[in-house]
Amino acid sequence: PFCSCRSRFGRQSSAGAWDRTTAPMARTPRHRRLVLPLLCLLFQGATALLFAVFVRYNHETDAALWHWGNHSNVDNKFYFRYPSFQDVHAMVFVGFGFLMVFLQRYGFSSVGFTFLVAAFTLQWATLVQGFLHSFHGGHIHVSVESLINADFCAGAVLISFGAVLGKTGPAQLLLMALLETVLFSVNEFILLSLLGVRDAGGSMTIHTFGAYFGLFLSRVLYRSQLEKSRHRQSSVYHSDLFAMIGTIFLWIFWPSFNSAPTALGDGQHRTALNTYYSLTASTLSTFALSALVSGHGRLDMVHIQNAALAGGVVVGTSSEMMLTPFGAVAAGFLAGTVSTLGYKFFTPVLEFRFKIQDTCGVHNLHGMPGLLGALLGVLVTWLATHEAYGDGLQNVFPLIAAGQRSATSQAVYQLFGMFVTLVSASVGGSLGGLLLRLPFLDSPPDAQCFEDQVYWEVPGEQEAEVQRSLRAEERDSQA
Amino acid sequence: PFCSCRSRFGRQSSAGAWDRTTAPMARTPRHRRLVLPLLCLLFQGATALLFAVFVRYNHETDAALWHWGNHSNVDNKFYFRYPSFQDVHAMVFVGFGFLMVFLQRYGFSSVGFTFLVAAFTLQWATLVQGFLHSFHGGHIHVSVESLINADFCAGAVLISFGAVLGKTGPAQLLLMALLETVLFSVNEFILLSLLGVRDAGGSMTIHTFGAYFGLFLSRVLYRSQLEKSRHRQSSVYHSDLFAMIGTIFLWIFWPSFNSAPTALGDGQHRTALNTYYSLTASTLSTFALSALVSGHGRLDMVHIQNAALAGGVVVGTSSEMMLTPFGAVAAGFLAGTVSTLGYKFFTPVLEFRFKIQDTCGVHNLHGMPGLLGALLGVLVTWLATHEAYGDGLQNVFPLIAAGQRSATSQAVYQLFGMFVTLVSASVGGSLGGLLLRLPFLDSPPDAQCFEDQVYWEVPGEQEAEVQRSLRAEERDSQA
Amino acid sequence: PFCSCRSRFGRQSSAGAWDRTTAPMARTPRHRRLVLPLLCLLFQGATALLFAVFVRYNHETDAALWHWGNHSNVDNKFYFRYPSFQDVHAMVFVGFGFLMVFLQRYGFSSVGFTFLVAAFTLQWATLVQGFLHSFHGGHIHVSVESLINADFCAGAVLISFGAVLGKTGPAQLLLMALLETVLFSVNEFILLSLLGVRDAGGSMTIHTFGAYFGLFLSRVLYRSQLEKSRHRQSSVYHSDLFAMIGTIFLWIFWPSFNSAPTALGDGQHRTALNTYYSLTASTLSTFALSALVSGHGRLDMVHIQNAALAGGVVVGTSSEMMLTPFGAVAAGFLAGTVSTLGYKFFTPVLEFRFKIQDTCGVHNLHGMPGLLGALLGVLVTWLATHEAYGDGLQNVFPLIAAGQRSATSQAVYQLFGMFVTLVSASVGGSLGGLLLRLPFLDSPPDAQCFEDQVYWEVPGEQEAEVQRSLRAEERDSQA
Repeated sequence: PFCSCRSRFGRQSSAGAWDRTTAPMARTPRHRRLVLPLLCLLFQGATALLFAVFVRYNHETDAALWHWGNHSNVDNKFYFRYPSFQDVHAMVFVGFGFLMVFLQRYGFSSVGFTFLVAAFTLQWATLVQGFLHSFHGGHIHVSVESLINADFCAGAVLISFGAVLGKTGPAQLLLMALLETVLFSVNEFILLSLLGVRDAGGSMTIHTFGAYFGLFLSRVLYRSQLEKSRHRQSSVYHSDLFAMIGTIFLWIFWPSFNSAPTALGDGQHRTALNTYYSLTASTLSTFALSALVSGHGRLDMVHIQNAALAGGVVVGTSSEMMLTPFGAVAAGFLAGTVSTLGYKFFTPVLEFRFKIQDTCGVHNLHGMPGLLGALLGVLVTWLATHEAYGDGLQNVFPLIAAGQRSATSQAVYQLFGMFVTLVSASVGGSLGGLLLRLPFLDSPPDAQCFEDQVYWEVPGEQEAEVQRSLRAEERDSQA
Repeated sequence: PFCSCRSRFGRQSSAGAWDRTTAPMARTPRHRRLVLPLLCLLFQGATALLFAVFVRYNHETDAALWHWGNHSNVDNKFYFRYPSFQDVHAMVFVGFGFLMVFLQRYGFSSVGFTFLVAAFTLQWATLVQGFLHSFHGGHIHVSVESLINADFCAGAVLISFGAVLGKTGPAQLLLMALLETVLFSVNEFILLSLLGVRDAGGSMTIHTFGAYFGLFLSRVLYRSQLEKSRHRQSSVYHSDLFAMIGTIFLWIFWPSFNSAPTALGDGQHRTALNTYYSLTASTLSTFALSALVSGHGRLDMVHIQNAALAGGVVVGTSSEMMLTPFGAVAAGFLAGTVSTLGYKFFTPVLEFRFKIQDTCGVHNLHGMPGLLGALLGVLVTWLATHEAYGDGLQNVFPLIAAGQRSATSQAVYQLFGMFVTLVSASVGGSLGGLLLRLPFLDSPPDAQCFEDQVYWEVPGEQEAEVQRSLRAEERDSQA
Repeated sequence: PFCSCRSRFGRQSSAGAWDRTTAPMARTPRHRRLVLPLLCLLFQGATALLFAVFVRYNHETDAALWHWGNHSNVDNKFYFRYPSFQDVHAMVFVGFGFLMVFLQRYGFSSVGFTFLVAAFTLQWATLVQGFLHSFHGGHIHVSVESLINADFCAGAVLISFGAVLGKTGPAQLLLMALLETVLFSVNEFILLSLLGVRDAGGSMTIHTFGAYFGLFLSRVLYRSQLEKSRHRQSSVYHSDLFAMIGTIFLWIFWPSFNSAPTALGDGQHRTALNTYYSLTASTLSTFALSALVSGHGRLDMVHIQNAALAGGVVVGTSSEMMLTPFGAVAAGFLAGTVSTLGYKFFTPVLEFRFKIQDTCGVHNLHGMPGLLGALLGVLVTWLATHEAYGDGLQNVFPLIAAGQRSATSQAVYQLFGMFVTLVSASVGGSLGGLLLRLPFLDSPPDAQCFEDQVYWEVPGEQEAEVQRSLRAEERDSQA
């Protein structure tokens, strides 16, 4: 009768207690378990040193500079950017962190590594983006805008994390963040500063870049024996509810995300509206398609948790433009449809044909909608006229307003920016994959993917140990 | 011994795994499972078309109009309304969504259908409210204020959802939202625009309307055989904690909810303060009453999750007025008391005497406190003097300030507004109930209410299937 | 074989269902269960009365006063303080509330008593702080700044709650809040108003005070028999994820917490930046140290949930000063390190040597980092120069700017403020402990600590009752 005992415990494990029989604990050799602490200390030491040498308050943050200029306190950009920043910050940490908690035994890692990786990225991006964007007089000058830009970079890194979720350790993720932050910032600099491409909400710079970086990285790290961990690559009832916290946070704050860096006034106002309407439409098309493609006409939580958000991605480039509310709704509808179909039909193809294991389906939520968003940006740019934008043209398309470009040539630049992003993401992701294969980085073995216990003290473990010895005693006493 | 096995599994199911024996899966006929996708696509197509024809940016959102007027960017109402809007948005989606997650097997539906229904309502309310409030030159002109108003309408629809939670399918809920949005907007237009009633936080237009619409709808959909699903109409430990996320979100953001549409300056400031104090008092009276009326002097999570919020409802009308901080505290105290007593003593009466099955007890949280709030509004209006309001009278009571009404006649109008709301909610809810009885709408059978599996792919289902066959094998091998 | 049955159920209980065998229900005598309701009603009645007599709107909240002054609406401080206030409010309720949900059977109490105690504190602090800070003309004048200050006081009370979590009943906590609010406000008044100490984010007034008040209180309430409840003083998998919601909320909104009461303009801007950078560094040092000190090189959720936040505490005093971004990073790094080491090595010493049972480890998150923050404030104050602050000196150090103090003497005052805080917290906490030992306050017995069922109706209880009788029947039928 004890075979039934085992299955009972096996089943019970999904409800929150710990199952030793299916999840053998990784006893990492002593020298390996120093890798994470040493990397954290090394990286923190290096950024602290660079902060000491280079980072200074800007004129709005420095007591002497702001008051010297006799500015009115209410003109400080803090008051126009900070509420959006806080929404972005909440979206990145609560949204991305909890969206990835859907796995049954990987919640600690999902939210914990999000926390670790994002915290490092925020510092590191401050430095890298600062060197590229606000370096003068030998110093980087920081303000609330630095915080927004750093959070955007963390968003891209977390998108890539979604592709390799469960298959990489924290030391690998820190190295990934180190590399990706640099490439993200360079790509962003090329697009926004050198090519004069417009991409406020980051359809290209954040979503397309983050997704394809992660997918190419996942390709290089392909595991042919991932089947061994497949039984853990699913959700339980309450882990899906935790993930919905992430979804709702991303959904409600996406209007702030897209509008955080746009021009003050009508620019932020219009961007928030367009994003809001696009998200409502992607939600409806996701519910429709999810029920349509399912076997029994029932909804799939994976689609709702993810594809409903595609409306925020798809208007990332164009929401600051005169997209019109109808344009936003139509774009959102299309994005939700493509994303849901991607989860149903394309993710298996990606894995079995292209050997890309995409745990969270970032190709469906960020990759394809990001590319669609870039193309939508090309279209809306191409249609831009002086009549439609009036004096506001100088905020949205300064190069067209200045007569240096026609709408058509700006549209071509937008398209070129998309290709540059694809190239840098794929080259960068492949390089990243090679880097992450360094043996000392303590990657989880194939049979222990999607498993918190490899990296965390998990409650219930000792309890399970006690259970096991109890059962063993019982068995002995019966024999 | 296997009878004990069954009870064990039965009990285990409450912890998160799935129990096939008590929850037979609904195998919906093929033609019925097309209803939800088709409704989604139809509704989305229709609103998209109407958006294309009618919806335009307003002067603060349109690049050409805003810059043409040479406005200072910081004067854009975006900066005074958007932070409140984001709080309202968070409150509607996280607050209402998670407050309803308390049921043990209906979490996916609670948060998922909230998401679907609210997303549709936001679009549809933009259109209906736009036709009534901001239609000129053949177009609806949208801005952040449209978003706030649409979120308010979604709040009312979600209150009604609370009354019928677990007993209606998503297709029914979409139809409910279609009808209720129209009636909500018309009732709101009659009160605010035609009758000149003041109701910033919506004690009448949102809470009273939403609650009685839902209650009359629930009356028409009365199920005499709901006993069959009663074992699922309760919470489990963690579902109650999820619901507390909803409660806390509603509680912390209610000051923003009531103050979002009020006059700038002292109006928003005073409204936020009054709501804050009222909520603190309703929390204390709820804890006091919950412990008093309970059998063992122990607190009941249902009361804390709901009645503690009644303080936000009860000052919906009067919080923009010169209610005084003491008035806010006293009103909150009364609302928490009435609401807790309602849960304890009136909900059973409502069900067994009036045949109104009110799953979330919206009568206690929104119905009675809403009516109290309307009456409080009558009282505070009646007491309004030129001395107390000074020049601010034109913001709070423009018709009194303009000499067109006395305080007494404004108070009578307020009272009349309450009756208009009750009539439109009860007629509308009854009509809605008839509409939702259309047979093709795929209502869940009596034995499958409060059950996610009817509409969702639920994790653990396959696992449970495996368990069942394992047990069967074992049984066979023993026999 | 039924001995195994018991252990099975014992284990299962950790997954969410209720275990009667290890948690006997407290049948409180009738007269005792009136204590909580009566205290709630008494306290609420008293504060309502005091509100009626003393509390009035201030000039920005009163319709007559604001409009009489012909102010521009946009100058109302509401628009500069309210977004920060909402973040603080979210942080106090969601952050502190859910951070304490980590215990397996104390989630209802953690979030519920947080709610109760904070709601009372907000009213009571409005009164006490109002008498000390904004009492003129016989009245207390309230505005959004009163709300921020009251939320700060609630923060301190909740920190003390963390020290005694699980070992005190709601009536005791209300009395604690009554006393602590008075002492907090007096201590704050002495520091900020009498001594002219700077402490915007409350390293001293909030964190040091709240922690040592709670620790001394816990010392007086020392339970030598707490072993009897030790099996419940741990987490389960999902309770740790709920706690991470609290952690992330505290982490993302801490920049708003520290900057909420600072000078407008560069002051708020700089404070938010410093806090943000400090938190990123404390996160990295926490991950490094947690992996280093653990037995198997694995991370401990207790450290991540708590010590990662120490960066917010440690810059509470100095973040409004010209700390420099490097200073913020270095301080955060140190705080995360000290806090993690405290959890690992000092908490056991505190319990077994000093007889201080500190459930949440507030000494590690608030006590030591608070003291470090106070000392950092001394250092940064001592280094203040006219060159570094320019005209901004009058905002940060008005007494130095006015020539009444040198930087050195201001630094000495800062240090003195720290000692005053330590003295008032320790004396106050000890007094509080004596007060809370009043027998009629219904403290939980040693064997029922960390147990929701003592104070709450818990779902699954009836179910467990049914289970028990089923098992008993089965046992009888076999015998």
